[in-house]
Amino acid sequence: MADTPAILDLIEHQLGERAVLRHPADQARYISDWAGDRLGMPLGVVRPSTTAEVAEIVTLCREHGVRMTPQGGHSGLVAGALPDRDGGELVISLERLNRIRDLDPINFTMTVDAGCILETLKQAAAEHDCDFPLSLGAQGSCQIGGNVATNAGGLNVLRYGMMRQLVLGLEVVMPDGRIWNGLHALHKDNRGVDLKQLFLGSEGTLGIVTGAVLKLVPRPEQSRTALLGLPSVEAVVALYGLARRDCSDLLTAFELIPRRCIELAMEATPALRDPLDEAYPWYVLMEVAATGPVDLSAMLEHLLERGMVRELIVDGALAGSEAQAQQLWQFRESMLEGQRLRGEHLRTDISVPISAIPAFVEQATREVMDASPDCEIIAYGHIGDGNLHFNILPPTALDDAAKRQHLRELEDKLFAVLDGFGGSISAEHGIGRTKQAPYLARLSPLEHEMARGIKALFDPEGLMNPGRILPVER
Amino acid sequence: MADTPAILDLIEHQLGERAVLRHPADQARYISDWAGDRLGMPLGVVRPSTTAEVAEIVTLCREHGVRMTPQGGHSGLVAGALPDRDGGELVISLERLNRIRDLDPINFTMTVDAGCILETLKQAAAEHDCDFPLSLGAQGSCQIGGNVATNAGGLNVLRYGMMRQLVLGLEVVMPDGRIWNGLHALHKDNRGVDLKQLFLGSEGTLGIVTGAVLKLVPRPEQSRTALLGLPSVEAVVALYGLARRDCSDLLTAFELIPRRCIELAMEATPALRDPLDEAYPWYVLMEVAATGPVDLSAMLEHLLERGMVRELIVDGALAGSEAQAQQLWQFRESMLEGQRLRGEHLRTDISVPISAIPAFVEQATREVMDASPDCEIIAYGHIGDGNLHFNILPPTALDDAAKRQHLRELEDKLFAVLDGFGGSISAEHGIGRTKQAPYLARLSPLEHEMARGIKALFDPEGLMNPGRILPVER
Repeated sequence: MADTPAILDLIEHQLGERAVLRHPADQARYISDWAGDRLGMPLGVVRPSTTAEVAEIVTLCREHGVRMTPQGGHSGLVAGALPDRDGGELVISLERLNRIRDLDPINFTMTVDAGCILETLKQAAAEHDCDFPLSLGAQGSCQIGGNVATNAGGLNVLRYGMMRQLVLGLEVVMPDGRIWNGLHALHKDNRGVDLKQLFLGSEGTLGIVTGAVLKLVPRPEQSRTALLGLPSVEAVVALYGLARRDCSDLLTAFELIPRRCIELAMEATPALRDPLDEAYPWYVLMEVAATGPVDLSAMLEHLLERGMVRELIVDGALAGSEAQAQQLWQFRESMLEGQRLRGEHLRTDISVPISAIPAFVEQATREVMDASPDCEIIAYGHIGDGNLHFNILPPTALDDAAKRQHLRELEDKLFAVLDGFGGSISAEHGIGRTKQAPYLARLSPLEHEMARGIKALFDPEGLMNPGRILPVER
Repeated sequence: MADTPAILDLIEHQLGERAVLRHPADQARYISDWAGDRLGMPLGVVRPSTTAEVAEIVTLCREHGVRMTPQGGHSGLVAGALPDRDGGELVISLERLNRIRDLDPINFTMTVDAGCILETLKQAAAEHDCDFPLSLGAQGSCQIGGNVATNAGGLNVLRYGMMRQLVLGLEVVMPDGRIWNGLHALHKDNRGVDLKQLFLGSEGTLGIVTGAVLKLVPRPEQSRTALLGLPSVEAVVALYGLARRDCSDLLTAFELIPRRCIELAMEATPALRDPLDEAYPWYVLMEVAATGPVDLSAMLEHLLERGMVRELIVDGALAGSEAQAQQLWQFRESMLEGQRLRGEHLRTDISVPISAIPAFVEQATREVMDASPDCEIIAYGHIGDGNLHFNILPPTALDDAAKRQHLRELEDKLFAVLDGFGGSISAEHGIGRTKQAPYLARLSPLEHEMARGIKALFDPEGLMNPGRILPVER
């Protein structure tokens, strides 16, 4: 049993008063995530400000058998960084570990503390004419350590990859309190098993990421955005094939948006006007960006012409200015807010092969609507990644408990369709607690054995973010 | 002790006569690598033609305690896939596992057997207007399974990444004979620890890769190549900074070549003429490529003008045709042949931060020349990856044994300089046997423990490619 009262005193003694939050009022913002629909009750919240302090805390927790919840910017969507309800987990917030240690614009790298806010890093890179290309709705609050731990994705994965492709080195406090210094600022390094890969996407279950070397790219000097109306998902996928070619590797985003999302966006942001003269069943919001002398307008116009000749595009708006581009992107942001205003709903972040998207959307829509004619489907996503947020708003007539039960059943149905297409139940949000059951149900015995073996190897006492991804073994 | 005679009979019994090579004459090509300077003596060579057959062989080896050497196309440079000299290792060649299982140009993926030759895959992709962008000197003979196992790099890493960035799914026969099916054709998949990362770069020590899902890109429709003469390594690095911006993400290669390599190339291929009017201490061979309507000539000309105004470039040749471009690339290939003709020399594939390249080259050159005034340094490489082949030709006066001893000492000196710049002793070739000592010397105790723990978890009996990367534990 954890020696609960003593550990906060010990940490306070070693790290000072500022490092420990004991009162429930101070803890409020550490026990809920962005969606606001989950709560935990921690043993306490500690806020180290150096890697050495993180190591001290972890060492103490290990000595006292205290379970740990490493925590970033509370923008997770699978309850992976929220403390359990049993009052036995110590939240270790990385928010005070927020220094940029180094920025090398010639090497195109920056070395940062885990608690740095993504947006802050992007701004720091911009000052050196560079960009850190991870782009998320939550970038104003999410922390880079959380982005590493969850292998974050976002809008620009198509061109720049997920966090896994953007991390060159890591510093990690291991579950036994030792510090692993893997902060290499090398673009190419091929020495045996690449240990840092284990921490990317393991959601804090194998150690606490305290620092990272990030890969930068030249800051784009110009970009062009277009919003296009299309007749079908087939047309969207066919247009992607053209765009991937016509835009070379300058295609930054290619977002699928259904009509319903345009409406939700206009509900959430009344200032928004319908972007095209008529309504279309599907829209594509796309962006190309470049440094150097490339005529992006000509590139996009060429693509739009080809798309229209082939009857893939019916109508479209090409942003003539940065302000117009931002207005088009406003739809993408407001539609998320519009969904949130609708309350409890099924959020998913599935993926399928790009070529399977039309058939998957057709079959999943049909099966879900057959099972629940009064629900509403909102399927949007990143076409180039095969990644769909196939979300479901429950029938408004149900009460909250019935809605939840109903959505669970629809999720099962949706995932069963997904299995038929060789899809993934999580393309970017991860497993955490909320996707654990469907994740485990799809692991082969061998995969389960490998995952459990790695967890046991790194964290034999099972104190590091226990119960996330894999269930606690007793 | 291994039950050596029996196992070949058992395998022959199960897989047929074609699958087993017993006679030394038949085994010759399985016991040396590209450089031809290392030999092993296997227990035998077996050639399965399906994943199930690989699994049968591995199961038999495990039952009989026989050590296994998985083998691809013999183009490794660190003796990782060559059998030991003690006659106790069974070579498992993947060469008959050579089917393309699927090619999906809409999903931009292909699913292939491990024994497929890289060049064959590139051609198959080209037929669908796609490209598999891994590009190596050995692409006519190396196998994709070897590329996966060694996390191969090559000429286009700058734009497309190493194998790690190009593999979406894997199929692996585990050391216990079970088959792991991780052949997901998903561009984004974030379900817990990414198991496939462990097999990428672990050089066949954790299992035998039998299949892979590879990421394709649109096949470039146009490219431009330039060979430039520069006054210094500083100028090369500064030009890279300009090129990375002016060429957006269309820069495919940016190779540093010293004058001595131009001479070696002309020695190896007498038809080659000095490419520029005068000789320059350093050259850059660079390429940009694109699909779609981009004016690459204007892009390159803009860069060259900027480079000349800043006195980074002194002179240059821009290939006016595909034939001229091939002629320029001929220097890159012939210089390798020129080195090989010089016999025993120190081959390295180190990396440093890009910003450190000039200071590293200066210090390493000085220290090596101070220690051995009669040796010859040939430092070329991939600037955008910070990856240098800092090779050393020994003094011609020494006999072979003395040359080897001398080169070992110079390698120690070079790696000591490298340590001061936070560099890697292997940016792409891997560790195998030949880089094991310097690799181990630089592992922290924690890293050693993690690497050993993972090996023991996957291969508790230590039969899978033993002694590569990590020493055999007895």
